[in-house]
Amino acid sequence: MTYCVGILLKDGIVFASDSRTHAGVDNFAKFCKMSVFEREGDRALVLLSSGNLAGTQAVITILKQRAEEKGDTPNLWTVRTMFDFVTLVSDAVRDVGRRDRPHLEKSDLKFDASFIVGGQIKGEGPRLFRTYAEGNFVEAGPETQFFQTGEAKYGKPIIDRVVKPDTSLSDATKCVLVSFDSTMRSNLSVGMPIDLIQYETGSLKLNHRRRFDEGDADFAALSKDWSEGVRTVFRGLPDVKW
Amino acid sequence: MTYCVGILLKDGIVFASDSRTHAGVDNFAKFCKMSVFEREGDRALVLLSSGNLAGTQAVITILKQRAEEKGDTPNLWTVRTMFDFVTLVSDAVRDVGRRDRPHLEKSDLKFDASFIVGGQIKGEGPRLFRTYAEGNFVEAGPETQFFQTGEAKYGKPIIDRVVKPDTSLSDATKCVLVSFDSTMRSNLSVGMPIDLIQYETGSLKLNHRRRFDEGDADFAALSKDWSEGVRTVFRGLPDVKW
Repeated sequence: MTYCVGILLKDGIVFASDSRTHAGVDNFAKFCKMSVFEREGDRALVLLSSGNLAGTQAVITILKQRAEEKGDTPNLWTVRTMFDFVTLVSDAVRDVGRRDRPHLEKSDLKFDASFIVGGQIKGEGPRLFRTYAEGNFVEAGPETQFFQTGEAKYGKPIIDRVVKPDTSLSDATKCVLVSFDSTMRSNLSVGMPIDLIQYETGSLKLNHRRRFDEGDADFAALSKDWSEGVRTVFRGLPDVKW
Repeated sequence: MTYCVGILLKDGIVFASDSRTHAGVDNFAKFCKMSVFEREGDRALVLLSSGNLAGTQAVITILKQRAEEKGDTPNLWTVRTMFDFVTLVSDAVRDVGRRDRPHLEKSDLKFDASFIVGGQIKGEGPRLFRTYAEGNFVEAGPETQFFQTGEAKYGKPIIDRVVKPDTSLSDATKCVLVSFDSTMRSNLSVGMPIDLIQYETGSLKLNHRRRFDEGDADFAALSKDWSEGVRTVFRGLPDVKW
């Protein structure tokens, strides 16, 4: 399984992904699910992968290869808007799906590659999308500011409760880390390292990026402080009247 | 769907269940999923139902009917231990399954009736069990103190984080209500009223019972206090270092 989150705020976007892939509990591995494309001052693009690893790796590789090709076909370095970028992702998903789907279906497997795609291209504001295995996609807005993929349920309530459009980047980032901590405590299929990006509106660069490995002292401290804070809040709530 | 929770503590057991049943979003209704059997000073038994409503209703009715029959067959008023009580529940589940399963399977439906069963019978301590649709069951212990059925993922992290064997009944009860609030915010298939019982070890009576209906002022206040408390904790957490 997987857990990925992207949150769109007035001040920017927070992205995070776990690194566990598995085919059964006896076959698991680490793969980074975060891909970035950055040309400082021009564009900062982030993709978080979920689904079948073969499929998502192929999509990312196709995006990279197409960006290296000569010619006038639009690629991730030349598209003018985030919408056009997500359309490139969508095209690549459909190309890989067309190739792999019939073979997967012979073994009763589904083609499954979906992405949280966000960032900013000079000339427009930051935008956040979520693509599906069929290549269609939706965009976040003020009513639905965040997307999750994979093992999403455990970590959803805390984001629902804390994040509003004007939540600070800093609070939303901490909220995402707590959401990951909660998910990893409850579900073995989501695991460290966590890749985290905090993108600031208008910066057009990805300079706030961090990886939290197993045993990271800052992550452990945040988890502990959060647990203690939560228990204190409980003690302060009024008792139920009978 | 459904959401039910039972938590075993040193000081007692907390039980809670929602009341929403549905077959598609255009066909939903309210049914109480909590059943209690109490003979003060002798036994206090609680069942929380989840699964197919026809199946769980039939199981409860069979338990009641069998308790009214003359003869020496053990029933819920005569069994000596909680284990023996859960065995009665298991027998009833299997009887209903035997009758319904072949007919459900003709329509590609699964027989699904499971219960969280807990309480105390004079002569032993409080105990908590979870039964499956097949009639087998497990018992809670110090490592796994709580069972959830139905839409369990949203509300699991907060219980994981807060509840330890020596958590007070009062804190665990508030934690359960927050767990329900989180679940209902994130998932339409879980809904009010919430039925809540706080059972105190050794009391052998169910005098701490409450129903929270839609718009309940205490529940709304708890939800608001919790949200504000959580945001305060976030503001106090150290910012992520890059």
